Amino acid sequence: MVALKRSPLAPKRFPNMLPVPGIDLATAATGLRYKGRPDFLVMRAKKAVATAGVFTRSLTPSAPVDWCKAHLHDGYGLAQAIVVNAGNANAFTGKMGANAAESVAEAAAARLGCAPGQVLLASTGVIGEPLDSRPLITALDDLSFHGSHWESAATAISTTDTFPKGACAVAQIEGQKVVLAGIAKGSGMIQPDMATMLGFLCTNAALAPPVLKALLRDAVDHSFNRITVDSDTSTSDTVLMMATGEGAHYAPITEADDPRLEDFRAKLRILTLDLAHQIVRDGEGASKFVTVRVSGAETVDAATHVGFAIANSPLIKTALAGEDPNWGRIVMAVGKSGERADRDQLEIWIGDQLVAENGMRHPAYDEATAAAHMKGADIRLHVDLGVGKAEATVWTCDLTHGYISINADYRS
Amino acid sequence: MVALKRSPLAPKRFPNMLPVPGIDLATAATGLRYKGRPDFLVMRAKKAVATAGVFTRSLTPSAPVDWCKAHLHDGYGLAQAIVVNAGNANAFTGKMGANAAESVAEAAAARLGCAPGQVLLASTGVIGEPLDSRPLITALDDLSFHGSHWESAATAISTTDTFPKGACAVAQIEGQKVVLAGIAKGSGMIQPDMATMLGFLCTNAALAPPVLKALLRDAVDHSFNRITVDSDTSTSDTVLMMATGEGAHYAPITEADDPRLEDFRAKLRILTLDLAHQIVRDGEGASKFVTVRVSGAETVDAATHVGFAIANSPLIKTALAGEDPNWGRIVMAVGKSGERADRDQLEIWIGDQLVAENGMRHPAYDEATAAAHMKGADIRLHVDLGVGKAEATVWTCDLTHGYISINADYRS
Repeated sequence: MVALKRSPLAPKRFPNMLPVPGIDLATAATGLRYKGRPDFLVMRAKKAVATAGVFTRSLTPSAPVDWCKAHLHDGYGLAQAIVVNAGNANAFTGKMGANAAESVAEAAAARLGCAPGQVLLASTGVIGEPLDSRPLITALDDLSFHGSHWESAATAISTTDTFPKGACAVAQIEGQKVVLAGIAKGSGMIQPDMATMLGFLCTNAALAPPVLKALLRDAVDHSFNRITVDSDTSTSDTVLMMATGEGAHYAPITEADDPRLEDFRAKLRILTLDLAHQIVRDGEGASKFVTVRVSGAETVDAATHVGFAIANSPLIKTALAGEDPNWGRIVMAVGKSGERADRDQLEIWIGDQLVAENGMRHPAYDEATAAAHMKGADIRLHVDLGVGKAEATVWTCDLTHGYISINADYRS
Repeated sequence: MVALKRSPLAPKRFPNMLPVPGIDLATAATGLRYKGRPDFLVMRAKKAVATAGVFTRSLTPSAPVDWCKAHLHDGYGLAQAIVVNAGNANAFTGKMGANAAESVAEAAAARLGCAPGQVLLASTGVIGEPLDSRPLITALDDLSFHGSHWESAATAISTTDTFPKGACAVAQIEGQKVVLAGIAKGSGMIQPDMATMLGFLCTNAALAPPVLKALLRDAVDHSFNRITVDSDTSTSDTVLMMATGEGAHYAPITEADDPRLEDFRAKLRILTLDLAHQIVRDGEGASKFVTVRVSGAETVDAATHVGFAIANSPLIKTALAGEDPNWGRIVMAVGKSGERADRDQLEIWIGDQLVAENGMRHPAYDEATAAAHMKGADIRLHVDLGVGKAEATVWTCDLTHGYISINADYRS
């Protein structure tokens, strides 16, 4: 492993994060793959609590994804702990991999005093290497739990990440403040329908499991499913969220459209979008954070699809890296998306400048202005398709020599 | 423009190519964008002859594509000349672009003594820059035609290509030898459903226009539509083919399934696949020529789709560049394709070595053997999905620092 330089797009520091009542964290260094750094996380509730999950749509999912799906029917249920290791994804490891996952869950359950099915698992790292569960089981015997070591927790789940990712919010439910906290990892193999990423969220709100699932699904669809680094989807993508209800003075909320959830839903969206943006800012080799807004589409799905056609285009991503306002490549990407657009009504903006309209370059287009915008670290592209009223925004980063070096020069 | 080094995967030399009876070629240097090199080609028949075309599926097609589609109804008809310029794609240039295309066609028609609609056009280069038709019209006044200057012709249509691309074959129809010849260009913006490429083919076979169209469509589907460099689709992709019938001792063949066409169809497929492979071998920054075979699929479409999921994956393409037999990324790509596969029946080969079967690494897998294969310039990947009998092969190249340099560092 090569030590990677902190992304130039990284936030200045890890945010101040609050403890979440009812949740404890512990990390350990198992030595499984990485030396001298924590690579193992346990997020524990005091008892089995409402838990929801959203998983990769990959048809070759990892053993931990299989495990979680088997124990969270329809993506929700009760769980007491989430156990995560970094360095080995336990994916494409056959029956041995399933056995290794089960062994870890059983050992954690024995340690925490719950059923194995109440222990959820996530693994990230190399695909196809058998996972040796023994160092993980050994680590379980010697954990020391604390309430809010979020930065250590975020560090422990990292692989090629160059900075730990966390976010925190406070929402009101029935006049009571509840905490939301989350950590995430991911920097490559990032694409829609679960970027290659892990995310672990918790709150002390009191929510019935299906309500938690609905809120999490909504937030994921507007955040982690709107980012792309390299268009590749992981076998291991997992977002899990626990809701402890600790200290809640109201009964668990049982309807997802309960008006009391309005602030919570909004805060959860903001929190997951914050984490998703941090993943893009840690995109392998990224030097630009790129917002692609597509308006004037027939449907939100069409707008999203065009957004990703732009955000995933190697030619656009390399032009961004080169600070070249080569908007012709945006025309190309719109055309290849296959979504309905009116070539002769298409409008394209780079930053605040209208570059093209009516099927051609705007007469007042000034390339120097566009080039100046491209020199910044925060690039905004906007396309109006001219055929409807729907819009969507997706986020990506540029494609640089750094991406090639990270992915061609050693195995992550 | 930066002068690019000849691709390390390039063939040793331009092939020996035969003249095609009834076809003349002329090239010129217009100075439109490139200095001191030919950038303009006219391929002329003695009279209007059977002509067929296959075009980009981009919804933002260039003005020349619009022009050709308007004059080749259902992709076939009669034409007397093909006029091509390199350096400016005349795409997303609005009404002015359409006017420029028409002006060039009219000038060529006047020069050649045919109707403007019998002049077909193709342009390649920058998108979104207005095309100044005057240098092209000037060049038309001073052309010198020869029968078989194929290498000059292939050079004149190049943009970021590092070598001219041509192929030639002889087929038998009714015991008579007919010549097939073709040139192509393309090195980036290459993806299925017409790679970013131009291809111009001709033959002296006597074929009715719809038959020529059917033969061309078949050949394109098995060649140019099976390659990818960077997953990006051009606004300008065009393949045109003329059949002069010059010297044919039989009446034009009017049925695509006429058994007399068997040899011709096979030779045309070989010729177009040869050109398609040359385009991959000139992939921007390519250092590996990669054959991806997918078997055991339910349908050929599914096999092709999985093949492209592998061939377009940035993580796989960078692993290829790094000569890293990171087969876990192949598992990832199969999983993300969304096509049916049986994870626990999946088989993966690198070169001749079985790497994985039954959902896990093969016990006898030897990484050194796989790594040795990856060091070659010609890489073979094979995946069996384990769910059916259909198969398909696609071709691509690796993703290297060279691709980033070419696309980030200047505008092509």
